[in-house]
Formats: sequence, structure tokens, C-alpha cells
Amino acid sequence: MEDRQEALIRSILRTYDDSAFRGIHHLGQCSLPSYREVVEIVKDLYELTYPGYGRHQKLSENNALYHVGHLVDDLIVRLNEQIRRAMLSTMDCSQSFAVGHSNDMAMSFLEKVPKVRELMASDVQAAFDGDPAAKNTSEIVFCYPGVTAVTLFRFAHEMHRLGVPMIPRMITEYAHSKTGIDIHPGATIGRRFFIDHGTGVVIGETTEIGNDVKIYQGVTLGALSFARDETTGDLVRGTKRHPTLEDHVVIYANATILGGNTRIGHHAVVGSSAWITRSVAPHTTVTIENPRLRYRDGSPIEERQIDWQI
Amino acid sequence: MEDRQEALIRSILRTYDDSAFRGIHHLGQCSLPSYREVVEIVKDLYELTYPGYGRHQKLSENNALYHVGHLVDDLIVRLNEQIRRAMLSTMDCSQSFAVGHSNDMAMSFLEKVPKVRELMASDVQAAFDGDPAAKNTSEIVFCYPGVTAVTLFRFAHEMHRLGVPMIPRMITEYAHSKTGIDIHPGATIGRRFFIDHGTGVVIGETTEIGNDVKIYQGVTLGALSFARDETTGDLVRGTKRHPTLEDHVVIYANATILGGNTRIGHHAVVGSSAWITRSVAPHTTVTIENPRLRYRDGSPIEERQIDWQI
Amino acid sequence: MEDRQEALIRSILRTYDDSAFRGIHHLGQCSLPSYREVVEIVKDLYELTYPGYGRHQKLSENNALYHVGHLVDDLIVRLNEQIRRAMLSTMDCSQSFAVGHSNDMAMSFLEKVPKVRELMASDVQAAFDGDPAAKNTSEIVFCYPGVTAVTLFRFAHEMHRLGVPMIPRMITEYAHSKTGIDIHPGATIGRRFFIDHGTGVVIGETTEIGNDVKIYQGVTLGALSFARDETTGDLVRGTKRHPTLEDHVVIYANATILGGNTRIGHHAVVGSSAWITRSVAPHTTVTIENPRLRYRDGSPIEERQIDWQI
Repeated sequence: MEDRQEALIRSILRTYDDSAFRGIHHLGQCSLPSYREVVEIVKDLYELTYPGYGRHQKLSENNALYHVGHLVDDLIVRLNEQIRRAMLSTMDCSQSFAVGHSNDMAMSFLEKVPKVRELMASDVQAAFDGDPAAKNTSEIVFCYPGVTAVTLFRFAHEMHRLGVPMIPRMITEYAHSKTGIDIHPGATIGRRFFIDHGTGVVIGETTEIGNDVKIYQGVTLGALSFARDETTGDLVRGTKRHPTLEDHVVIYANATILGGNTRIGHHAVVGSSAWITRSVAPHTTVTIENPRLRYRDGSPIEERQIDWQI
Repeated sequence: MEDRQEALIRSILRTYDDSAFRGIHHLGQCSLPSYREVVEIVKDLYELTYPGYGRHQKLSENNALYHVGHLVDDLIVRLNEQIRRAMLSTMDCSQSFAVGHSNDMAMSFLEKVPKVRELMASDVQAAFDGDPAAKNTSEIVFCYPGVTAVTLFRFAHEMHRLGVPMIPRMITEYAHSKTGIDIHPGATIGRRFFIDHGTGVVIGETTEIGNDVKIYQGVTLGALSFARDETTGDLVRGTKRHPTLEDHVVIYANATILGGNTRIGHHAVVGSSAWITRSVAPHTTVTIENPRLRYRDGSPIEERQIDWQI
Repeated sequence: MEDRQEALIRSILRTYDDSAFRGIHHLGQCSLPSYREVVEIVKDLYELTYPGYGRHQKLSENNALYHVGHLVDDLIVRLNEQIRRAMLSTMDCSQSFAVGHSNDMAMSFLEKVPKVRELMASDVQAAFDGDPAAKNTSEIVFCYPGVTAVTLFRFAHEMHRLGVPMIPRMITEYAHSKTGIDIHPGATIGRRFFIDHGTGVVIGETTEIGNDVKIYQGVTLGALSFARDETTGDLVRGTKRHPTLEDHVVIYANATILGGNTRIGHHAVVGSSAWITRSVAPHTTVTIENPRLRYRDGSPIEERQIDWQI
């Protein structure tokens, strides 16, 4: 039995040496960023963004300075460490370059908190204005997964713009895991953005979304196909592959909009379950035709429906 | 550096004062309900509902009294506190009114535990009867996200009926986050209800579901459009916007059923990916036509398929 | 008040006795497996599979033996306990049979770790090769929910093949809860498998997937209908109900493929939102026709679209 256990341990260890397994272990180098620590950082950013909604429930004008001062002081150190690790493990840069830049990146990032709060206040108001089931804004901050996903996206996007590698994706993937809403940090999204229900929403890396846009669960803003390098056959990374939504667009549940040249004009409405790979003019409403449905015996269903409908 | 940090802290604090940010912070007032505490309460409700499946693994007839007694005693106090906070922060009521009612609401809510257990026993049996992959009822209690989502919905619905604000939505949103199934506490759902897989399911606030209904992943029971007040232009809240499913209805994966006047008759079956905005008569099976598909060179695909099919 | 509380406690306890509630409580017998403990075991399997990515961040060739030795030693004991409980609570076997087999099953299962690592290395590389948004393999291990879901599936599948009851489903349901990807432990899946985004994916119990297959969010590989026993009317369990995907198949977002006789030939591509219930020949691309869409005034939308498109 001991022999079997020892053989098992050795067989696992052997795979840590093997170059065929490269990329799924990380030994004897500087540490990778910690997903857990990134999650803890995100929770503290949430405390800063929605004071009174989180751990600290007795906040007032009198003690808010201590609360914010402590969180910021702590976050600078912890962000600094994670950013440094992310730089050293993914970029071809020296230890001194990473140390020199990570603290400034952490600080520059935190300086975006007021901007993110301002955007989220606009998003929360848009949710209240757009959903007849919403009773008040507190309910929206607490209970709308779109608020969680978009708050974390807005932070990740600011970090992405500062050039921080890897951590922005960890942040949006944490949001995806909590909400089912997958927004790439590279997307650009305007003010008063509202996602309702949200499970299954995918917003790709090069998507552009204007102001006052509303989307529902299951909407994909995706790529139509991927370009490959003509010489190497490798995927070309970084081109515009995902659609553009202009201001005041509404996309209903489970609609799919694909392609980097696909542009949904301002004030257009895309109906539930529509599948769009071409641009839509402003002020247009696009819905699917009532699909032809089959009754069990093969006859069309329409008449029976009408007869019976109350 | 210290100056920069201090300026950062001050810039965040300034946004806590600004009326433009109202609704996303809560300072110097009575505390909001705590989402974390609501989650802990939900976990204890789960212990009461599925004894032997949770933390406490050595339950028997001899010690169950201590277990239940302790949980109930503790839950009354904690529910009381959260209900009081929810009332004070969302309703226009006095401290004494809230204190006077919250304890009774907590008790009245817990008195629904036997009813919820009885409904869930019927749901678990329906899951076993309806899914050929299920091996036994223990597997269903442990591993079926529909059981989690519907248990939490049933508790949230009872609390909603008692008039408790906000907390019912926190409970169903916690279920949504765990399972991808989003059921509004206002929906009404009968006995022996079964959701399989469940990710992406949305059941709106005014949905009515009869007995012995089965639905699959990605099903939306949603609104067709929202009525607006003719004078103010604001959304009208509270009207019947979502469909009605009569007894013994089956809705297969990713079907969408929209509208407050849409009624799916008893024993009707709605096929996978169907899109329905009109009522369906009882005993009717509605499926989408095989969509016309395109082969790469533009020719219809049918013949090749048939030739090749084994 | 005390009377009311006591009556409440007694009313809950009464439901623990009632045979109508059977299957949703478990009292006075050997303990059920613990979902929490299974989750902790899964986290340790993750540590073994992706060393340097998890809790233990200072791993090197020098200390990896201690790390792996400790994890394996601990996991054998804990797996043994959970497997024994699962056997005793779901199979008609004696205590001595369960004790005799559970330790061997735990060991045999852990001996699959090198195989799972080898498969996951192939999957991670496939993700990098297949997604233009991926920057490096570390990002894929940390941030791709498909990696989480498929790693846990591959472990659950090995345990399922060893005949361990219940725990494989607990593992894949934990993955489902984290990622929105629901893969039954009974499915068979080849090398270099890649799921992108993933929310809403369902892969049924009898699905067979070859090598180099890529699927996107919202894809259902499901059953068309369930066979019932002609005599008893009960569902027939265990027949082939879900499709087969041959090598090098790509299934784009929200496509639905149903039926145990449905076979997607090698190098076939199924487009976004397609709905397939018949086999598709090798090297075929199947896409939905551009659905006819309706403009608000009822006229076809095509011309306006073309006029406006940039």
C-alpha cells in the first residue's frame, strides 16, 4: 500500500517536469497573481463603490473618512503586489521595471473610483427607469446581477486601459462566475447601460456600446469568424471582430448579433431571439417573423390557436 | 506620494456627498439589510428543509429536536432584524411600526417551513419521475440546481406574500447567482414543478404556473412589452405582463414564451427553441419547423444528409 | 409567544417523520456524503492539477514533493470516507463491502491525476490556438470557465468509470454552479476540447465527443425524447439519448443538437443558433438562413439595411 501511494506521488511529480505539460504549472519562478487575492480586492472595491451596502453597515459622514482611508491604503499595497506579479509573469520586463510601474498603476487605477461611481449611479438609475419590476434603487444595487457585472467590468476596463495584464480578465471572469454575464475588459460601454437578468450574456473584446443601451439575458455580441494570418495560419489577434451598438439601442432576450462590421443604429430595437449579421438602420425595429410552428398531426397551428385564444 | 493618496481619498469621499450619486450609497441612516446575513439565513433554512443533507450529518429522531429548536430560535431573531431593516429602508413607516410587525412576520414566515417542505418533496419526486439520468432522490436534492432555485423561490414567495420588502428579491437573486435560474418572488408556481439543467431560465414577476409543469434550460417566461402611463410616460408597475402555464405543460430547452395574455393550455408541449407570443390550446404540441439550413456552397443540405445518415 | 414558537418547532419536526416527505430528509442512518467536503476535495485536486496557480504560490522543484505528498496523503483518507458514504447510502451493499472497496477506489481515482493533467494540457493549448482574445496560457488556466468545467468533468468521468455513485454528479454540479456549464459525468470527451464563454452549455449523459472539438456558450447536446417502458410506463434509463460529435467539429453559440442517433460528421461546422435533430455529413457547414425579419411598418427590411450599411 505504501509502495502504491509512493508510486502515485512520483507519477504526479513527473508530470510537473514534463515540457508537454507546460503552461499548466508554474514552478520555481516568481509567483503568479493570486485569483483569491484578486477576488478579495474586488470585494473591497465594491465597499468603496457602494458604501453602506456591504460589510460596513454603520457608515456616516463622521466615520466615512476612516473607512475609505483604510480601504485605499490597504488596496494600494495589495494591488501593487498583484500588478507586479502579473507584469513579471506575462510581459518580457525586468523586475525593476515592474516594481517601478506597478505602484503608479495601482494608484492611477484607484483614482478612477469616482469615475466608476459616477457611471454606476447612471446605470442604476437606468435600471430603475427601465424595469417595471424594480421597486427602488437599493433593490437594484443589491439584487441586479447586471449591476455586479457592469461594476466589475468598469473597473476591469480602467485597469485594461492602464495596460495592466491578466488581472482585468480575472476580474471580469469573477463577475461571469457570479452572474453568468461575460463582458471582456476590452469592450467599450457608455453611460446608463442596463442588463436585465443577464444569464448567458456575452460581450466580446472589440464591442462598442453607446449611451442608454439596454440588453437582456442570453444576448451574444460576438464574432462572425476569425481572420487568420495568410502566411502562418495563426489567428490574427486584436482586429475589430464584434458589433457596434449606437445610443438608445434595446436588444431583447437571446438575440445574437455578430460581426465587427455589424452596426445597430441609434434608437433601433432588436427583438427577442433575432439573429443579426448585418447592420440595422437607426430607429428600426427588427423582430423575427412568428416562426411557422407544427401541430402534432402536421397541420398548421394558427386556426386552433385563434379559436381557443381568450 | 502621500499628497496623491490623500487627494485620492478626498476625491472618493466627495462622491459620497453628491446628490448625483444618490441611491448607490447609504450613510448616516438606519442600516440596510445585509446581503451576507440574508445568505446565512437562507443556508439555515436549507438545513431545516433538508435535514441530514447539510452541515449537521448525524441527525436522528433523538437529536432532531435540539437541531430544529436551535435553528428556529436563532432564525427568528435574525429574520426579525433583517425584516425590520428592510421595512425601515424601503417603506414610509415608523420605527415603532417596523418593530411591531417584523417579529410577527419572521414567525409567520417560519410557520411556512412545513408547507415548503411538502411542496419540495413533490418537486423532488417529479424530478425523479421526469429525468432518466437521475439515479435516486438523494442525487436530486444534492445535485439538481432546479431544486436549489425552486426551494429558495418557494421561501421567497411566502415572504413576498407576507409583504416583506426587498429580502425576497435578495433570496431569489442568491439562487440566481448559484444556479443561473432567475425566478421572481412574485410568480406563482404549483406542485410537482421540475426545472432540468436550468441555466438561463427566467420566470417573470407575474407568471402563473400550474401543477406538474416541467421546463428546461434557457426557457424565458417573459414580458412582450411594457405599458407606460399615458400622462407621465413612466412604466406602469404591477400589471400582468408574463405568461400563464396550465397543468401538465412541458417547455423544452431555450423556448421563449412572452406576454401577459399568452396562455399555454394544459398538457401542451412547447418544443426546444420555439418562440411563442400567442396562446396555445390544451393538448397541443408546438415545435419549430426544421429550419432551412445552408450548405457551404449554397445548395440545400437535405439530400446529402439523407445519403450519409446511418 | 413561547407557545407559538414551540408549536412551530413541533410542526417542523412532524414533517421529519412523515413518509410523504421521504427522500428529502436523512435521519438515523449512516451519513450521506457531504457536498461541502466534496467541494474541498475538488479544490485540492485543482491544486494537484495546476501547481503554482492556487493556494501554494512558492512551489519549486525543491518543495513540490512535500506539497504533492501532503495533498495525496490527505486526499486518500477524505475520498475514502466520501466514497464509502456514497456507496452505503445509494447502493444495496454491506458496510464491509463498502469499506473494502472505497479505499481502493480512492487510490485508483488519484492514479488518474497524470492522465487528467495530460488531457488538460491539450485542452489549454487548444483554447489558446482557438481564441484570438487569449493572450497566454496562464490567462486560460485562470480565467476560462471552460477549463474549470472540463477539468472537473474529466475527474468526475474517471470516478464515474470506477463505479463510484453520486460523487461524480456532485463534482460536475459544483462546476455547473461556478461556470454555467453542465456536463454529465457519463459523457465521453476526447482530447483538445475547448468550450468558450460556456454559460448555458448542456452536455447530456450519453453524448460522445471526438478530438479537437470546439463549442461555444449556450450549446445544448440533448435528448430528443425519452423512451418509456411499454409495460410500466416508467422512463427507460441508460439508453443512448444524446448526440455524437466526431473529430474537428465546431458548434457555434446557442446551437441545439438533439437525439441519440444524431451524428455530426468530422470537420463539420454548425452555425450559431442552428437547431439540428438529424445527422450532418463530414466537412459540411450548416448555418441557419438569415431569418426573415420584420420592419416596424411591415415592409421587408433588406433594402433599408443595404442603403444604410457603411
